[in-house]
Amino acid sequence: MERTGNAVRERGTPALDVFFRPQAVAVVGASHVPGKIGHIVVRNLQESGYTGRIVPVNPKGGEIRGLPVAQSLSEAAAEGPIDLAVVAVPAPAVVDVAEEAGRVGVRGLVVLSAGFRETGPEGARREAALLKVVRRHSMRLLGPNVVGVVDTHTPLNATFAEGFPNRGEVAFVSQSGALLLAIHDWARKEGMGFSRFLSLGNKTDVDESDALAALAEDPNTRVILLYLEDVRDGRRFLEAARRAVREKPVVVLKSGRSDAGARAAASHTGALAGSDRAYEAAFRQSGVLRVNSLEELFAAAWAFLSPRYPRGKKVAVLTNAGGGGILASDALAARGLELSSLSRDTIRELRETLPPEASALNPVDVLGDARADRYARAAEVLARDPETDGILAIVCPTATAEPEKTAQVLAETAARFDLPLTAAFMGGEAMEAGVRRLREARIPVYAFPEAAAEAWARLVAYGELRTRSQTPTLWDSPHRHRLLGEGDVRRAEEVFARVRAEGRRVLLSSEVLEVLAAFGIPVAPTRLARTAREAAAIAEEFGYPVALKIASPDILHKSDIGGVRLGLADAGAVQRAFREIVDAAAAHVPDAFLYGVEVQKMLVRGHEVFVGGMRDPTFGPLLVAGMGGVFVNLLEDVAYRLVEPLTERDVEEIFRETRLYRLLRGFRGEPPANLAALHRIVARVAELLRELPDVLELDLNPVFASPDGAWVVDAKLTLREERGTAPSPSGARKPEGGAESDGPRS
Amino acid sequence: MERTGNAVRERGTPALDVFFRPQAVAVVGASHVPGKIGHIVVRNLQESGYTGRIVPVNPKGGEIRGLPVAQSLSEAAAEGPIDLAVVAVPAPAVVDVAEEAGRVGVRGLVVLSAGFRETGPEGARREAALLKVVRRHSMRLLGPNVVGVVDTHTPLNATFAEGFPNRGEVAFVSQSGALLLAIHDWARKEGMGFSRFLSLGNKTDVDESDALAALAEDPNTRVILLYLEDVRDGRRFLEAARRAVREKPVVVLKSGRSDAGARAAASHTGALAGSDRAYEAAFRQSGVLRVNSLEELFAAAWAFLSPRYPRGKKVAVLTNAGGGGILASDALAARGLELSSLSRDTIRELRETLPPEASALNPVDVLGDARADRYARAAEVLARDPETDGILAIVCPTATAEPEKTAQVLAETAARFDLPLTAAFMGGEAMEAGVRRLREARIPVYAFPEAAAEAWARLVAYGELRTRSQTPTLWDSPHRHRLLGEGDVRRAEEVFARVRAEGRRVLLSSEVLEVLAAFGIPVAPTRLARTAREAAAIAEEFGYPVALKIASPDILHKSDIGGVRLGLADAGAVQRAFREIVDAAAAHVPDAFLYGVEVQKMLVRGHEVFVGGMRDPTFGPLLVAGMGGVFVNLLEDVAYRLVEPLTERDVEEIFRETRLYRLLRGFRGEPPANLAALHRIVARVAELLRELPDVLELDLNPVFASPDGAWVVDAKLTLREERGTAPSPSGARKPEGGAESDGPRS
Repeated sequence: MERTGNAVRERGTPALDVFFRPQAVAVVGASHVPGKIGHIVVRNLQESGYTGRIVPVNPKGGEIRGLPVAQSLSEAAAEGPIDLAVVAVPAPAVVDVAEEAGRVGVRGLVVLSAGFRETGPEGARREAALLKVVRRHSMRLLGPNVVGVVDTHTPLNATFAEGFPNRGEVAFVSQSGALLLAIHDWARKEGMGFSRFLSLGNKTDVDESDALAALAEDPNTRVILLYLEDVRDGRRFLEAARRAVREKPVVVLKSGRSDAGARAAASHTGALAGSDRAYEAAFRQSGVLRVNSLEELFAAAWAFLSPRYPRGKKVAVLTNAGGGGILASDALAARGLELSSLSRDTIRELRETLPPEASALNPVDVLGDARADRYARAAEVLARDPETDGILAIVCPTATAEPEKTAQVLAETAARFDLPLTAAFMGGEAMEAGVRRLREARIPVYAFPEAAAEAWARLVAYGELRTRSQTPTLWDSPHRHRLLGEGDVRRAEEVFARVRAEGRRVLLSSEVLEVLAAFGIPVAPTRLARTAREAAAIAEEFGYPVALKIASPDILHKSDIGGVRLGLADAGAVQRAFREIVDAAAAHVPDAFLYGVEVQKMLVRGHEVFVGGMRDPTFGPLLVAGMGGVFVNLLEDVAYRLVEPLTERDVEEIFRETRLYRLLRGFRGEPPANLAALHRIVARVAELLRELPDVLELDLNPVFASPDGAWVVDAKLTLREERGTAPSPSGARKPEGGAESDGPRS
Repeated sequence: MERTGNAVRERGTPALDVFFRPQAVAVVGASHVPGKIGHIVVRNLQESGYTGRIVPVNPKGGEIRGLPVAQSLSEAAAEGPIDLAVVAVPAPAVVDVAEEAGRVGVRGLVVLSAGFRETGPEGARREAALLKVVRRHSMRLLGPNVVGVVDTHTPLNATFAEGFPNRGEVAFVSQSGALLLAIHDWARKEGMGFSRFLSLGNKTDVDESDALAALAEDPNTRVILLYLEDVRDGRRFLEAARRAVREKPVVVLKSGRSDAGARAAASHTGALAGSDRAYEAAFRQSGVLRVNSLEELFAAAWAFLSPRYPRGKKVAVLTNAGGGGILASDALAARGLELSSLSRDTIRELRETLPPEASALNPVDVLGDARADRYARAAEVLARDPETDGILAIVCPTATAEPEKTAQVLAETAARFDLPLTAAFMGGEAMEAGVRRLREARIPVYAFPEAAAEAWARLVAYGELRTRSQTPTLWDSPHRHRLLGEGDVRRAEEVFARVRAEGRRVLLSSEVLEVLAAFGIPVAPTRLARTAREAAAIAEEFGYPVALKIASPDILHKSDIGGVRLGLADAGAVQRAFREIVDAAAAHVPDAFLYGVEVQKMLVRGHEVFVGGMRDPTFGPLLVAGMGGVFVNLLEDVAYRLVEPLTERDVEEIFRETRLYRLLRGFRGEPPANLAALHRIVARVAELLRELPDVLELDLNPVFASPDGAWVVDAKLTLREERGTAPSPSGARKPEGGAESDGPRS
């Protein structure tokens, strides 16, 4: 389905302030009938305490909720400037309303009405027409098909949701309107406060990238939550996200993760889905925290409201219940955090202050009969411990527990010692006052230890994510030249032209190696021989031993048909092998077109590594690297990175995320492989994908990695269908699928 | 720390009825002071509506809460039989109370008092004395160090917890008292109803196995929840769990999963932890559902209250919000469930009944303006769909949504069509009436689609788990002989005796292969040669090619020092290789004790498989199998099973759980390996571990698996320190660690 508006987006279009802090709001399609959306919006504006002018617009005129009704936007604007118009008229009338709005100086449109792209071709045409009008008048458009917008600090409630959220510091942006309504209702019960709600709907103009930019600079927002079904423009999103993460945590729930979900999303939004691996890489590389459920999304929000973020991951658990301490230990370990090893002094002081049966080791168990004062003393000792980055406190409702007072002393200790703290106040009614007290101090508190551990992990992760968002990419000078060479683009393009001239899109192995060499990637010397004699001559030039491999676009599993011969030690062996290979090919695949036989110098073997790339429709070139060899698909031991915001750290991490890494580092006392050489190959493959948009897919497999270096032994490269066309949906395929369909290479 | 009482446990000791349905309860240590535990217990008994006699016991006499106080248990019993005594006196007085209780005919003791094993050696002695008294009088003991026991149906509340839980059908058993208090408080807020609460404390007598047996036969309990920090007796637990799972779902949260958690548990309960892998296998093989957090534990309880369990895993999602449908699709897929492919008739009927913009494909989107009647019509159509096993329904609080009425029609449709259903009623206040309505119908309902999908997965899983609990094990006749041979125990024991006589515990490879052969496990012919000439003679007997490997207990990494030679083709080569190997060994490890050189016939290679076993201190012999070769530890591609309740299905599944399985099945068109041969090896290794308690650890690596069969090429076997001693804590080590410390074998 066609995406409207993407191409004409310009920088420097007005920011979203008009949606959050308008001077005057017109409600076009305001209704006299309570319960109708056009009535609820007027009511919500009034009840939110919005102090600007509210003008209901309805051709019938009269009064709505005590406000005089203008019969048109023009009439409304005649009495004073209107900068925001909320539109709730039927879809067919929206374009005319927009036109009138543009004429009278409205700067922002919120179109609640459905009946656009989501309903089919006619709706899509209507949506395109609407965007055209919006652009012509330099307006911004939220929607269509949205619930509206809320800013609790302005205050402003331009939605048709029931009730107004509590004022707070969490911003929630949702591509689904119904989900926003649900969260809105749910959050009031949970007591979560919000700064802004933004419903994105069809994202015809304003999209997630605009929202991120606006929320990044909102002083009332400390955490940004996103629910997304797709990203409109990958490049813009990555930029906006990296900027936003530098300011505050950004948490995303991206649905359509599974195949079933992606199909459901496609039928819901009509979006061509990028691969989930590309989304995963995009979120990670921009520093956005991805979660897997709505529950996690809001649990993360509670965590990020914390006034203090830990500097490290060494946690002291403080509990009045052994069971809670064990559960917390498990949960911390499962998330890569550590129980801090308390110093001798700390242990001694704890022993002095706690009863003899208490545990002065971590988890510190103050026992079931602990009152608030015992927590206070223990927390203070732990706060001074040099090996501890913060506390996870657990309170169970034992007979003597004092949850509220304990909350109080924990909050005070945390503030006094600038101590990161999350808490599990386990229970229901007995814990309510304590929970309230902690929330007032913005200390993340949950009903169970596992959630308190999760919150700790989130807080630690943000430091990490923020650093990520600030790291310059390989494409920013002056970093550009450390890992990157000077790719010989012209030589590569000559090879491509030759291949296309033969009506092919898949290069021969020797051709790929030529292109790789042009980008400074070390390859095993390889050349195509048309005759046995030619093969022998090449072998003489390379030196022995050599390998011979059949070169034919029609033969995928070369080894299986006897198309590969290794370890040939002299010219006679090479000539014999040449003939045997050609005979075998003729016998097994009689119709195969044979280009000849490739002669390759056999170098010392190393670990088999896979490095590859493909194009994602949303995010562009995507790197993949990991364990190579015949079993790439079996082991799926690979990691992914987008080329566009690639950093040196990404290049180093890509192998570290695989099990292969232990092998490369030197398994069981073997010498380590030359990782720097592998990193150079990854960086240069990234450059190649960036500089050569003609490359649809590239697989280097195997790359041999040894202590002495790394070099490519076999490779496959597929060109786009036609120069300059958009990548096919194959961007969404499983990246290693190329290898799967191709069989062992050597 | 010493475990008391384990050894003297007998079958046929009285069941736990006395704790749940006593005729008369004495509270020993009853207090006149409100707020004291001894007072709260009396109050709780009274307020729970318990209809039997309640006798407070306190030497001071008088009255407590209107009840006459007996000055001793004897006095209490004089006025009528007492079958249950709740004891809240200080620890040093408990043994005397128990003695008196036994004398006057009390059958059950609930000891709330702390101050036993958990406090150190003196407490442990006290605990042992208490158990002795309990046994002598044939009483049962709950505790010490417990919160008590609740049965809401009796009704009975013999705890010091605040408040009485709602009556319901969930039983909760907790090894941690504080956690029980927390859950008790939390569950009242959540509205979850309970049948029974049982606090296990020190488990001196009554333990998790007793609890399972009692709850399995309780007609008021439909779901059993366990929080455990350890299992006292693995064998008994497996039996009790398998029996209980046949009756109703059993869900366990076992803490101490991580190393950090296990250390915390050890310091808390003093228990020697079995390995988490053994626990994992134990739960799976007995059909117990293991969860990872308290939150999951209770979410599972809500699920299992469902009146209807699905027969298959094909789910129809019914939603008024596209976003919710996508999230549900993702969450179902992540848990191995499927969106059902609706039949043509279903799709046609949905199209007829729904508005044109609605989605009649799965997820079925009835649109944001749907009222209850539209849900009803769609649900009915889906209920009749032959391809659908049940529904996941989502309701968002849109302007026109009717949550309560929708809940009503969904519950009715589910009942009418006997249709499994879980629901996400997304929101807070707006959804409350709907949620209540669904809970009345016992339909699992959650705030978010992910949780509703999780519930679906739980319901599907139970069918599976129940089957597991009913499957006879390999050790039950008549199954015994399909996969098992007749192990020659005597021959194996002769080998062990020889090895021990030489002061060794680690067998030579040739010795292990001899033991394996005695159990009918195919091995590559291997024999130890002391001289070059002997080696050549053995090779002549085997036929060529052969391999030679140094045999020395002092050389672990044989290949690294030139101690392995492969592919020797004649007697001369064998003799030369023998001498070179011995020279190399002498050069590299001058002090090594050399037994000689092993000669092995080289058979056709196959996939490298690992099969091994070790002993867990709690659950006995534990099998491990998966990918073999040098990289066992790198890939960790293995699965585990306990030997004791091993079924044929377990044997078949063990490889299916590994990535290796794809290779064995025939990767990329290769012929499949002989899986039946591998299964026989696994079963025979299980038998070997069962029949030869002297074996501490056994690693077969590699086993070659080809289309023609499977045979062991190299193996390692370590004997226990001394015959008949208990296994060392090495049972808790990483099972594949043996291979790690041993290096490549060939």
